[in-house]
Amino acid sequence: MKERLKIGVVGLGGRGLGILKDIMLPMEDVDVLGVCDLYEDRTKYGVDAVEKARGVRPIGTQNYKDILNLDIDAVLILCAWEPHIEIAVAAMKKGISVGMEVGGAYSIDDCWKLVNTYEETGTPCMLLENCCYGKREMMALKMAKDGFFGDIVYCEGGYQHDLRGEIAYGEENRHYRLRNYINRNCENYPTHELGPIAKLLNINNGNRMMTLSSMSSSSKGLHQYILDKKGADDKLANVHFRQGDIVRTNIMCANGELISIILDTTLPRCYSRNFTVRGTKGMYQENGDYFYKDGEPEDLGKLYGNGNVYEKDENNLHPLWSNYEAKGGHGGMDFLVYRAFVESNLMGINPPIDVYDTAAWMCISTLSEKSISLGGMPVEIPDFTNGKWFNRTDIVDFKYSLDWQTNLK
Amino acid sequence: MKERLKIGVVGLGGRGLGILKDIMLPMEDVDVLGVCDLYEDRTKYGVDAVEKARGVRPIGTQNYKDILNLDIDAVLILCAWEPHIEIAVAAMKKGISVGMEVGGAYSIDDCWKLVNTYEETGTPCMLLENCCYGKREMMALKMAKDGFFGDIVYCEGGYQHDLRGEIAYGEENRHYRLRNYINRNCENYPTHELGPIAKLLNINNGNRMMTLSSMSSSSKGLHQYILDKKGADDKLANVHFRQGDIVRTNIMCANGELISIILDTTLPRCYSRNFTVRGTKGMYQENGDYFYKDGEPEDLGKLYGNGNVYEKDENNLHPLWSNYEAKGGHGGMDFLVYRAFVESNLMGINPPIDVYDTAAWMCISTLSEKSISLGGMPVEIPDFTNGKWFNRTDIVDFKYSLDWQTNLK
Repeated sequence: MKERLKIGVVGLGGRGLGILKDIMLPMEDVDVLGVCDLYEDRTKYGVDAVEKARGVRPIGTQNYKDILNLDIDAVLILCAWEPHIEIAVAAMKKGISVGMEVGGAYSIDDCWKLVNTYEETGTPCMLLENCCYGKREMMALKMAKDGFFGDIVYCEGGYQHDLRGEIAYGEENRHYRLRNYINRNCENYPTHELGPIAKLLNINNGNRMMTLSSMSSSSKGLHQYILDKKGADDKLANVHFRQGDIVRTNIMCANGELISIILDTTLPRCYSRNFTVRGTKGMYQENGDYFYKDGEPEDLGKLYGNGNVYEKDENNLHPLWSNYEAKGGHGGMDFLVYRAFVESNLMGINPPIDVYDTAAWMCISTLSEKSISLGGMPVEIPDFTNGKWFNRTDIVDFKYSLDWQTNLK
Repeated sequence: MKERLKIGVVGLGGRGLGILKDIMLPMEDVDVLGVCDLYEDRTKYGVDAVEKARGVRPIGTQNYKDILNLDIDAVLILCAWEPHIEIAVAAMKKGISVGMEVGGAYSIDDCWKLVNTYEETGTPCMLLENCCYGKREMMALKMAKDGFFGDIVYCEGGYQHDLRGEIAYGEENRHYRLRNYINRNCENYPTHELGPIAKLLNINNGNRMMTLSSMSSSSKGLHQYILDKKGADDKLANVHFRQGDIVRTNIMCANGELISIILDTTLPRCYSRNFTVRGTKGMYQENGDYFYKDGEPEDLGKLYGNGNVYEKDENNLHPLWSNYEAKGGHGGMDFLVYRAFVESNLMGINPPIDVYDTAAWMCISTLSEKSISLGGMPVEIPDFTNGKWFNRTDIVDFKYSLDWQTNLK
């Protein structure tokens, strides 16, 4: 087991710089040797942040290849969605462990590259899906293993986040979402909801996703927003956004479960991941934050908000969260997922979200694009494990793998 | 305009007898000349109910054809789902106006028979979809016309009702749901949610539903319920129910709106129709009963339950409901939909839910069965108007057609 992890960071936009400053630099067993962004100003913010925290100036570069030439154990890929897999593959080929922020894939071929490179090199690749470490998501995971839901037959989730202000932001808009919303129509951000659901349903570990069908509404939200906020003379006022306001995707699993997810980012609403678990004995629904147990009175007035009551029962809260909060945990699910990455690397074990999970979850974007373009046609979801999911022997069980993540600073 | 309506009633199970006693017999301008049920005991309950209320014994029969031979203006079809269309077609051919309880169709051919018979005979046929007259559904309809939601691009709804006790009831189970849940797997009850959504989106009046894709979860809820409540020796314990616990159906509309509906009747839960309206300016969601207007703070704690606040604004409550409540309305949406049937018949105008609506909404069941059996393949939804939806001239607008329904007893 290593004592310290040497890392490089690629991507220093809002998410990247925030993770660097608030999550990684406070970790005393992590050294940041290099930072990178396509934009010079952002690179400088990153260099300055490392120097301020650690007193040492790291390498600053605008070319990710310079980062991969450093003597580092791992790279964090926190940049725009499009080059995620290219950088990940290049890093794995150099034996550099990959931690990759969330986003969807642009082709099935890219997903296979990720898996094949892992199998050729043995270098781990972890999708940094923070929502897998959400408090309610982990409660549901624990309660599912303990039988609260009975047999789970349906899960639902969404990325329901009004991003109009971010996508159509300011004069010089450098956000990658803008070009994605102009050019593509798909479930562009599936993993916040799908990751926790996949863990709950044992996807890639005794189960797998088989097929999906996606349909999209028309695209009206962004255009209306730009007219209202910026006026008819704005340079985006006549842009046609291909991305539909709502995309709904139904996914069938090998064990008969149905998953339904929704992308919902360009209409007015309040944030929700719409996390929903349905079984033969009970349910959880994020809308209203309530658990319901078979046989209880059907009284929503009393059920709404009982998530907070269930959380106080130590049998329900996931031990990782109990330990974390007992130690004054700060940073929530972001801290937990990045800490899982760091510690699994230090210990030399598979990450709890591995390359097969990464490929299976990311491929939903490109498959939904295909299905939408074919009028909702069901399309096959590849088995990236090539049958290994029947009986995985290399898995770090999600539940128990987290027990070692208690060495909080 | 007629002053009195002579009717017959076919189907006297739980729903049929309840409607007869609580809704129809209290209407002073309605005469019930005959009642019918396949079961002798139920027929007797119906005869007795009419005699008790009116002092006259109606014809009682176990053959619906006897009812259609009476001198009646209209027939109410309140029986099991399967023969709805057969009886409706036979009635229309005799010039007897049809009011039909909700249910799904078993073939597209049956839906065309309904439409063709209407076009040949001119006899109206109305689906008695009470949820079109729900208070929130009508508020949303009015607020949509008034612009609250901006352009509506997405609607969602469901029939989320734990029916396990009803389906697996008692020793001698006469409920038609049991045989349907054993033999079919489909969106078997789409209209409670789809009816109000279709009216909101002007389906068959400037818009139409084009295609759908349905996927189903496995079927575990009923089996588990029977084991838990009745034990492994029960005669239903080894029955395989084809009906999946959850069926999700995505529907594309000609004007670009996406509709997503869910059937959810065999797992533990609290009742919901999950009515959801999403537009460029605002939203409504039944889960939490709240409206949200673009630009408001995203504070679910304050928004939850504000449907009751919006309802107090006379600009929001539909005038039909205002009038109805002002006059001490009793019976809610059941009364309103049956009253719409009676009054449109007395006035000799088209019913507000006409034969094209009936066919378009009912066909979702058989199309979802097809789509599920083909792995979620998108299937076309027929244009039962044969192009008349471009520019209907025969329509009784849903909003304004209700203004005459104020002659409450």
